Amino acid sequence: MAQKVTPRSKDYSRWYTDVVRMAELADYAPVRGCMVIRPYGYALWENIQQGLDRRFKATGHQNAYFPLFIPLSFIQKEAEHVEGFAPQLAVVTHGGGEKLEEPLVVRPTSETIINSMLAQWIRSYRDLPMLLNQWCNVVRWEKRTRLFLRTTEFLWQEGHTAHATEQEAREETMRMLEVYRDFAETDAAIPVISGRKSESEKFAGTVDSYSIEALMGNGWALQAGTSHFLGQNFARVFGTQFLNERNEQEFVWQTSWGLSTRMVGAVVMVHGDDQGLVLPPRLAPIQAVLVPIWKSEEERAQVMEIAQGIQNLLEGVRLRLDDREGYTPGWKFNDWEMRGVPLRIELGPRDAAAGQVTLARRDQKGSKEAVPLAGLDEQVPALLKEIQQNLFDRAAHFREEHTQYPEDYAGLAQAVETGFAWAWWCGSAECEARVKDETKATIRNVPLEQPAGRGHCIVCGEEAHEQAVFARAY
Amino acid sequence: MAQKVTPRSKDYSRWYTDVVRMAELADYAPVRGCMVIRPYGYALWENIQQGLDRRFKATGHQNAYFPLFIPLSFIQKEAEHVEGFAPQLAVVTHGGGEKLEEPLVVRPTSETIINSMLAQWIRSYRDLPMLLNQWCNVVRWEKRTRLFLRTTEFLWQEGHTAHATEQEAREETMRMLEVYRDFAETDAAIPVISGRKSESEKFAGTVDSYSIEALMGNGWALQAGTSHFLGQNFARVFGTQFLNERNEQEFVWQTSWGLSTRMVGAVVMVHGDDQGLVLPPRLAPIQAVLVPIWKSEEERAQVMEIAQGIQNLLEGVRLRLDDREGYTPGWKFNDWEMRGVPLRIELGPRDAAAGQVTLARRDQKGSKEAVPLAGLDEQVPALLKEIQQNLFDRAAHFREEHTQYPEDYAGLAQAVETGFAWAWWCGSAECEARVKDETKATIRNVPLEQPAGRGHCIVCGEEAHEQAVFARAY
Repeated sequence: MAQKVTPRSKDYSRWYTDVVRMAELADYAPVRGCMVIRPYGYALWENIQQGLDRRFKATGHQNAYFPLFIPLSFIQKEAEHVEGFAPQLAVVTHGGGEKLEEPLVVRPTSETIINSMLAQWIRSYRDLPMLLNQWCNVVRWEKRTRLFLRTTEFLWQEGHTAHATEQEAREETMRMLEVYRDFAETDAAIPVISGRKSESEKFAGTVDSYSIEALMGNGWALQAGTSHFLGQNFARVFGTQFLNERNEQEFVWQTSWGLSTRMVGAVVMVHGDDQGLVLPPRLAPIQAVLVPIWKSEEERAQVMEIAQGIQNLLEGVRLRLDDREGYTPGWKFNDWEMRGVPLRIELGPRDAAAGQVTLARRDQKGSKEAVPLAGLDEQVPALLKEIQQNLFDRAAHFREEHTQYPEDYAGLAQAVETGFAWAWWCGSAECEARVKDETKATIRNVPLEQPAGRGHCIVCGEEAHEQAVFARAY
Repeated sequence: MAQKVTPRSKDYSRWYTDVVRMAELADYAPVRGCMVIRPYGYALWENIQQGLDRRFKATGHQNAYFPLFIPLSFIQKEAEHVEGFAPQLAVVTHGGGEKLEEPLVVRPTSETIINSMLAQWIRSYRDLPMLLNQWCNVVRWEKRTRLFLRTTEFLWQEGHTAHATEQEAREETMRMLEVYRDFAETDAAIPVISGRKSESEKFAGTVDSYSIEALMGNGWALQAGTSHFLGQNFARVFGTQFLNERNEQEFVWQTSWGLSTRMVGAVVMVHGDDQGLVLPPRLAPIQAVLVPIWKSEEERAQVMEIAQGIQNLLEGVRLRLDDREGYTPGWKFNDWEMRGVPLRIELGPRDAAAGQVTLARRDQKGSKEAVPLAGLDEQVPALLKEIQQNLFDRAAHFREEHTQYPEDYAGLAQAVETGFAWAWWCGSAECEARVKDETKATIRNVPLEQPAGRGHCIVCGEEAHEQAVFARAY
């Protein structure tokens, strides 16, 4: 890692790609628009998966797996759905050396094929709610791609649930949005705004879409997770019915919700700095790196013995002992800083003699603290917790600094240059489109938490009863 | 679950499909040759994944993720590889509404695309060994499919490693074969034979392939995992080189190894019976089901209170409390037997009064034992261990009964009708082909553990220094 990343201030976009590639999170694949997730990036994704999967299971969901291939005719059944996804489809036309009778689509999302199965499985209200999730890859053909943020193939989870009543399905939609918010804020240390997507930005084929929106280091927004209330749209076209308690056939009410490897990109962009990655301890594949330092063989033996002891002491911490030969301590420090390891534990001969180690936090450049070996098993976890909180606070502070509440259109146009702009919106697609055309900013969502009262649309001046959050977005 | 499975003795193949579908492990998808893995089947797969992933990480491997799509030209680079896989490819010809310049293949396996990346990542011997694994879906077009055993799309893990020397790569090949054997025998309770595949049965593009072979309930073999020594075959065509310690460019030595959702099929076929599934406790999604039984409301309150206590007591056990209303205890017993839950804990008013429960083992039909509540936290885990061992012993005994050591060709032809046949083999492809043509049995592998001495080929009578295991196979 002799290379340095491009400074954020110089070129944010290059900084991002540099960090992702130099920290070995991911690499471009030889297939257009696809990426390779390298071990360090995949370990981060595994921690994201665990944090979510635990929450999904705690809320009663079960994992399953549906086919990669979807008959083209399925996608075409729901009119809005096909309109939204048709331009992004990858199509298999040949299999086993022969041309297929019906082309198969590589799933861009699985509402259709899952409904085709639910229609077989669900008979009566006793089979409901059916709460499913799958972890899988999906493909959406993209013209302009960026590692993790927008790639032709990506990994995600997609939850799909079926309910007996509209209310239950609406509750589920909000429950999973809240799971995403909790995950983003608690595990990824990323403050997010939960809200409803506008008509023009919602998922193709849904009644209502909701999202969590995070603010990146360059003042752009990133949609980090979505939860949809599908109504009965897919149930109608696939005939997903159940016998209700009054003995009548009724279409099920559905939801779907997804969060993808995009979240890795969000972690990079929210917390990273000019030294590289900064990882929140709860998601970091390596929470602390222990760097033993020695000159003589005698010192080496002494230091390594203590290092072993520290490893045993910190059993519950994801600790890496970096005893690589042929690298200077300074080189190692830089290497682990680049990779965003939250805490560095330095152990030199002087530390060893004094029965202490030197701790350096990744989130506070230049801070070093000598602490006694005794009690390290309490101090390190406590410090990791503190770092986690500090990253969240820092991101929340940054967001606050980059959020404006403009009172007129000129103010809105200026505000979205640097971050979020909250403003009254009359709800019309015309006003939304004008902002997009003129400022490139979109309505990220209509936040669930609204200010009191009413106002006037920042675009047309008509009465408005909701505020929307506008921003440039990935 | 009022339905009954077709008895094994009547129609083994239908029995298998009945069990898989009625126990809700999987279902046929609306896409030809594909399956849907239902929550119960997927939970079983998750336990298989955990058992393997833990072992992979303990042996120094890291997970990563490579693209689903592979340029057709990559597959064509290795001559044997393309010959083996060409008839099975699914081909994407259109993406984003346009015809692709170069068709993309949906990965049937990832040696080629991984080598294209390794060639970029590996510079010197310091980068070696590189020990990677990925969990993913793969597609191989199949004419005749069967749930879990042979489907067009399946889930698996594929390990891919690169080493500085042939010896290291060969050691890795055997290490991972042993990991598979240990997993199959310890976790899945399936005794397997570890051995080398013959030239005609080996993986397309490899130097040597090894497998673990299990015997199914109908006397057929199932290849349950494979480990390949790739030599430098892929490294040569992709230019995967490293600077060795003598400062010379050298091609890396590679391995790959895979185990798939096929293992679920093996578990069904090895342990299942005419009542349905029988799951080994280490893999069972539900290790014990607690069925409370009552008639009056008073009994219900009493029984449910004790049931809660049992749940707390058995915290470390994957326990399901079946307090569903509207089903008789007998119906529940049958339902959980069908689903193969290893242990049933019955708790009726009489049990409650006596401070006991009644335990029924899935692996011993009709056995019931009343045991006191006190000590259940030790007894249940001990019993699960005993059941795990009993399933293995039973499968080993079955295999022993269905293994023959024929001394002449007629004996071989007869032996492969009912199970494994160990016989001396001269090593020639002609003798192997004759057996296949005349008996439909193939050489499953040449076991690593060989009898002492030498013999004469069971087909041609020439001198032979190895025995092969012959069987009909899935």
